[in-house]
Amino acid sequence: MGKADKLKIAGKPAGLKAAPPAPPPLRAIKGGKTAPAAKPGTAKSALAKPAPAQPDDAPAIALNLPPVKLSPAMTAYFKKCQDKLGFVPNVLLAYAFDNAKLESFVALYNDLMLGDSGLSKLEREMIAVAVSSQNRCYYCLVAHGAAVRQYSGNPLLGEQMVMNYRVARIGKRQRAMLDFAVKLTAQPWNVEDADRERLRRAGFSERDIWDIAAVAGFFNMSNRVASATDMRPNTVYHGQAR
Amino acid sequence: MGKADKLKIAGKPAGLKAAPPAPPPLRAIKGGKTAPAAKPGTAKSALAKPAPAQPDDAPAIALNLPPVKLSPAMTAYFKKCQDKLGFVPNVLLAYAFDNAKLESFVALYNDLMLGDSGLSKLEREMIAVAVSSQNRCYYCLVAHGAAVRQYSGNPLLGEQMVMNYRVARIGKRQRAMLDFAVKLTAQPWNVEDADRERLRRAGFSERDIWDIAAVAGFFNMSNRVASATDMRPNTVYHGQAR
Amino acid sequence: MGKADKLKIAGKPAGLKAAPPAPPPLRAIKGGKTAPAAKPGTAKSALAKPAPAQPDDAPAIALNLPPVKLSPAMTAYFKKCQDKLGFVPNVLLAYAFDNAKLESFVALYNDLMLGDSGLSKLEREMIAVAVSSQNRCYYCLVAHGAAVRQYSGNPLLGEQMVMNYRVARIGKRQRAMLDFAVKLTAQPWNVEDADRERLRRAGFSERDIWDIAAVAGFFNMSNRVASATDMRPNTVYHGQAR
Amino acid sequence: MGKADKLKIAGKPAGLKAAPPAPPPLRAIKGGKTAPAAKPGTAKSALAKPAPAQPDDAPAIALNLPPVKLSPAMTAYFKKCQDKLGFVPNVLLAYAFDNAKLESFVALYNDLMLGDSGLSKLEREMIAVAVSSQNRCYYCLVAHGAAVRQYSGNPLLGEQMVMNYRVARIGKRQRAMLDFAVKLTAQPWNVEDADRERLRRAGFSERDIWDIAAVAGFFNMSNRVASATDMRPNTVYHGQAR
Amino acid sequence: MGKADKLKIAGKPAGLKAAPPAPPPLRAIKGGKTAPAAKPGTAKSALAKPAPAQPDDAPAIALNLPPVKLSPAMTAYFKKCQDKLGFVPNVLLAYAFDNAKLESFVALYNDLMLGDSGLSKLEREMIAVAVSSQNRCYYCLVAHGAAVRQYSGNPLLGEQMVMNYRVARIGKRQRAMLDFAVKLTAQPWNVEDADRERLRRAGFSERDIWDIAAVAGFFNMSNRVASATDMRPNTVYHGQAR
Amino acid sequence: MGKADKLKIAGKPAGLKAAPPAPPPLRAIKGGKTAPAAKPGTAKSALAKPAPAQPDDAPAIALNLPPVKLSPAMTAYFKKCQDKLGFVPNVLLAYAFDNAKLESFVALYNDLMLGDSGLSKLEREMIAVAVSSQNRCYYCLVAHGAAVRQYSGNPLLGEQMVMNYRVARIGKRQRAMLDFAVKLTAQPWNVEDADRERLRRAGFSERDIWDIAAVAGFFNMSNRVASATDMRPNTVYHGQAR
Repeated sequence: MGKADKLKIAGKPAGLKAAPPAPPPLRAIKGGKTAPAAKPGTAKSALAKPAPAQPDDAPAIALNLPPVKLSPAMTAYFKKCQDKLGFVPNVLLAYAFDNAKLESFVALYNDLMLGDSGLSKLEREMIAVAVSSQNRCYYCLVAHGAAVRQYSGNPLLGEQMVMNYRVARIGKRQRAMLDFAVKLTAQPWNVEDADRERLRRAGFSERDIWDIAAVAGFFNMSNRVASATDMRPNTVYHGQAR
Repeated sequence: MGKADKLKIAGKPAGLKAAPPAPPPLRAIKGGKTAPAAKPGTAKSALAKPAPAQPDDAPAIALNLPPVKLSPAMTAYFKKCQDKLGFVPNVLLAYAFDNAKLESFVALYNDLMLGDSGLSKLEREMIAVAVSSQNRCYYCLVAHGAAVRQYSGNPLLGEQMVMNYRVARIGKRQRAMLDFAVKLTAQPWNVEDADRERLRRAGFSERDIWDIAAVAGFFNMSNRVASATDMRPNTVYHGQAR
Repeated sequence: MGKADKLKIAGKPAGLKAAPPAPPPLRAIKGGKTAPAAKPGTAKSALAKPAPAQPDDAPAIALNLPPVKLSPAMTAYFKKCQDKLGFVPNVLLAYAFDNAKLESFVALYNDLMLGDSGLSKLEREMIAVAVSSQNRCYYCLVAHGAAVRQYSGNPLLGEQMVMNYRVARIGKRQRAMLDFAVKLTAQPWNVEDADRERLRRAGFSERDIWDIAAVAGFFNMSNRVASATDMRPNTVYHGQAR
Repeated sequence: MGKADKLKIAGKPAGLKAAPPAPPPLRAIKGGKTAPAAKPGTAKSALAKPAPAQPDDAPAIALNLPPVKLSPAMTAYFKKCQDKLGFVPNVLLAYAFDNAKLESFVALYNDLMLGDSGLSKLEREMIAVAVSSQNRCYYCLVAHGAAVRQYSGNPLLGEQMVMNYRVARIGKRQRAMLDFAVKLTAQPWNVEDADRERLRRAGFSERDIWDIAAVAGFFNMSNRVASATDMRPNTVYHGQAR
Repeated sequence: MGKADKLKIAGKPAGLKAAPPAPPPLRAIKGGKTAPAAKPGTAKSALAKPAPAQPDDAPAIALNLPPVKLSPAMTAYFKKCQDKLGFVPNVLLAYAFDNAKLESFVALYNDLMLGDSGLSKLEREMIAVAVSSQNRCYYCLVAHGAAVRQYSGNPLLGEQMVMNYRVARIGKRQRAMLDFAVKLTAQPWNVEDADRERLRRAGFSERDIWDIAAVAGFFNMSNRVASATDMRPNTVYHGQAR
Repeated sequence: MGKADKLKIAGKPAGLKAAPPAPPPLRAIKGGKTAPAAKPGTAKSALAKPAPAQPDDAPAIALNLPPVKLSPAMTAYFKKCQDKLGFVPNVLLAYAFDNAKLESFVALYNDLMLGDSGLSKLEREMIAVAVSSQNRCYYCLVAHGAAVRQYSGNPLLGEQMVMNYRVARIGKRQRAMLDFAVKLTAQPWNVEDADRERLRRAGFSERDIWDIAAVAGFFNMSNRVASATDMRPNTVYHGQAR
């Protein structure tokens, strides 16, 4: 967590924290007096690591792979991230042990997620999160869940993509898109002509279908690299666009 | 993000929100100039329902079950929720079509989640969320995810319980507890003596084991009532304790 | 096994037990003489525990939780069970370590399974068993399988709910009800509007749908408490209403 | 149901049927008077088909395959079944549309289940039922569940094999045998040297391992022929050896 | 591998083997010179067992079951295999520890796969392979994959049955047949009237449906006997009808 | 098989193709005369599309995406493929609708599969095929199965990776590598420190672990792009290195 976050939490009124997260106990009501049921301090102290010495996002991955000197292009790219985002996403730090791997990852990622497409950037992020939810990938759910919240301006949509995309109140087009991406994730062997037809009927072009498949495929790759390496999302993502 | 959104969020520094959620495109860097890659306005306008007329949490459930007049005890309980939380949790409104069902649900819930136990309230909420993640229950993930964030004072812990409890940096005791609860959720037929022994070795008493089972069991019930009725969490939960 | 059962078994004609449970061997026929192929005595002696010292249903659970002194209401309830059923169901004994937990369990159970509903008591028991079959819960399959046999007067129906509810020759209404309950058990995240619509088309009211969900949910809880604690059904259930 | 069964049921004291299968409702106790909560008559009348015109076991299968004239050996075999069991098992009637298929099935079955083996006949039937439970095969669960009850003289053991073999209080040898058979059923691709070694350590010979595999394999075949054809077990099995 | 195979491989032009199996590396192109990227010799030497002392198909199974003296009929059958095929299939050697088991296996197999049927021999082999693919059975995929290649004269069809039958460009009749066989393999409990109706609509008779079920059932048995015993296919199959 | 079938087969060269793929029928032996059991010609005529007008590998994918004019680098790369392999792999043709996507795919692929690594090229191809088997991806199984056969000079190894990698007689190092890759494919959420430790104990470096994850991840992407688009492997792969 960055400094700002820590300050913000520290600044919370104690009363708010003492508020029970769930309805008060029935007996308290009966007794006409509210018992201090949810003493957060106590509850917290029962946590094995109440104040973790290790930040959640350091190290970025569980493999010991020291960074190499990056190419000028990649150095500039990292600087740009720092300037615009305030941080370098940990997935980039993870790849920084090998400049060629970093470059090919960045090229692929940027083409897919930020390049021209019939899918909006938000739609691509929605696919990213729905796929990552199926694979339960911590890194991608946090980083791309934040992206969905930011692009949509709708924090709930981000949460719904993380939890169960089927509950989102989205239109038929986007539902068809996510159904395809998640089926492709869970049972790729069962994807057939009828599935592609369903996308066409929902208004997607041939190129759109490719892009849905490519984004879903990409996150099936990234989810696995992240899970294999215990990649940790920058903690700053958690609080973005809430 | 469109202008309207920016205004709504007006309190936040504009610069932060304008920052793209993901690294800028590589080609922009090469060109020495940053292209407006992530035009949020466009992205957003592609969303089927940019400004949903229907709030996410109304109606509370997808069944048409008009509320009845509640008993004095339940009326007082709802009032207490309103006073302390600022709202009545939708799960209570959902049960309000039948006072007896509401009372037995509240009695069971409060005994389990707020009554005496060798498990801290936070631990019980952690079980609630890990189980609800296995079942992908929107209502319970939102409401109890907020509870984990509040009780722990650690927003990340709530997210981890929602996404994949295995990534949380918790101690062996809590890990054993969650492993048991999730196995009991996913493959109850495979739970045997060895699983109970593992809990005992992690320091849990006979009564603690009952409580872990009872909380995991309870959310396997609640998750299904919520999914069967499309229960929607009060939107206020989403922003709590971030 | 209770006394009555033992007597009944002891009273069986030896000839019946000697009858092979399966067709006689072909070679015996060829040889014109039936070999004593299925000597049950021998077969039985090969069983590791032919005469188990430990009755199947004692102790009621695998956790050491001594009973407490019950409230007058619960004491009366146990006595009523003894008087009417001839025994106290082990699930009640299991909860008897804590009077409040026992009371809230009993209240919830009785409201759901015996209270007013558009579902007949038999239908609620059919849901109980179909759900418990999905979860392979020994306690609930035995106790509620007996209930289906008794309520229906049709021993086969009980067996079919235990084994595979799809083979039962039931009408469309009940089939829709069980399909919903079992889908809700196996894949709660996939239950959506279309599933509720299917129930409405099968003639179920809004309240009926709640009740189907609530009963299915309840047994998803009970199955897990039973599996987590190795709860054993009273042996007397096995022979009831055959 | 055969005549004998009907008579037995008819002979049951009416009072027994009126007994509720579950504990009486709490409110009845409170009120000091037991409500006629569990009126079986009512409950039964709510069943779509209270008195099915179609017996459960006719026709034997859902394919229209008229029987052919059997060979003398098969004719004698059917007569022997009739004489010894009182009926011809429906699986044999199912195969009777083709004498060669019937003969090869009978030869294989009798060799496996009744021929020489280091496994007792009861153990082979236990495998049959545990495998059929995994595959949820109605025919085999009923017919071979009865066989386990008969061979063991222990009705509970039959029920446990049907419901969840893991709850049976059997020795390590039989547990290892069933674990192997069920893994082989559910994930044959994962069976490797370590699994065979576990059987050897439990005391099984090379030939015993073959026999466990062969019996498990056979029921994986029979379960599927039965499910594919909706094969119905002779109703008489349901009441045997209870 | 037999001698002939080794010679054939040895006879391959070295150039062909040196050809990389995948596109050459991009940088090689850029450099204007092709690096010897895919030195098979090197790659091969990295394999733990480059020249395995143990042939893949010996012993035929991982159980130590010495062969017995076969009956004249079985002796003649083995000789016929040797004369016509050039080898005795290992599945027959596996059963040769017991003449009765061998005979009943052979009788069942030959009736099913080579006897009269409305299904062509190729169709039966297609079922065999699609089922074996679901169960990932090495022996059956190799031996019956070769049969599909031979009967069809279409090597690709054999590969497709092994890999994912859904990609094969077959007609509706055969697709319906394989869909039924694979569903019966993966979820036998879900096969119902609608599945049988689908086969009837695809033109299959009642007897054809039996045969589809019987062949699918048979390979569900054989797959498990093979996996349980680590049965190895004769290496000669691998090169047949490519 | 009918008579006509037998005759038609007779026309094929007596040599290899006439050999029956399975043992001759028992009855033929009994009759003292061997029927020409496996006349492939006949069998073939029963196939719905015996001589498909459409080649299996055209079009390369089921999306209508016309190729664009490629960059000089990509044009040269395609020419090099044609020169060295004799064909351009269909996956490259599939990407040829967009030069940037093609370039980023090729860069990533070549770095991963042909660049420096502690894993041999064969090992990377083994991962490719084991992962593709889990996902049942036709394109990748065919193309990379051929690569395993070529790199290893062991056709059986290729088949084993396609069918069930657990049957391959490989060393502990490669088995650990494939176990990790397949677990990462099937249950990425369950990969944790213990899994990485198992690789370290098998002798893999930190960088090797990354490479295993990266290759497994890459094929989880490619498998899905291929399945989503019905990508067809060049038919020439099927016969390579047999």
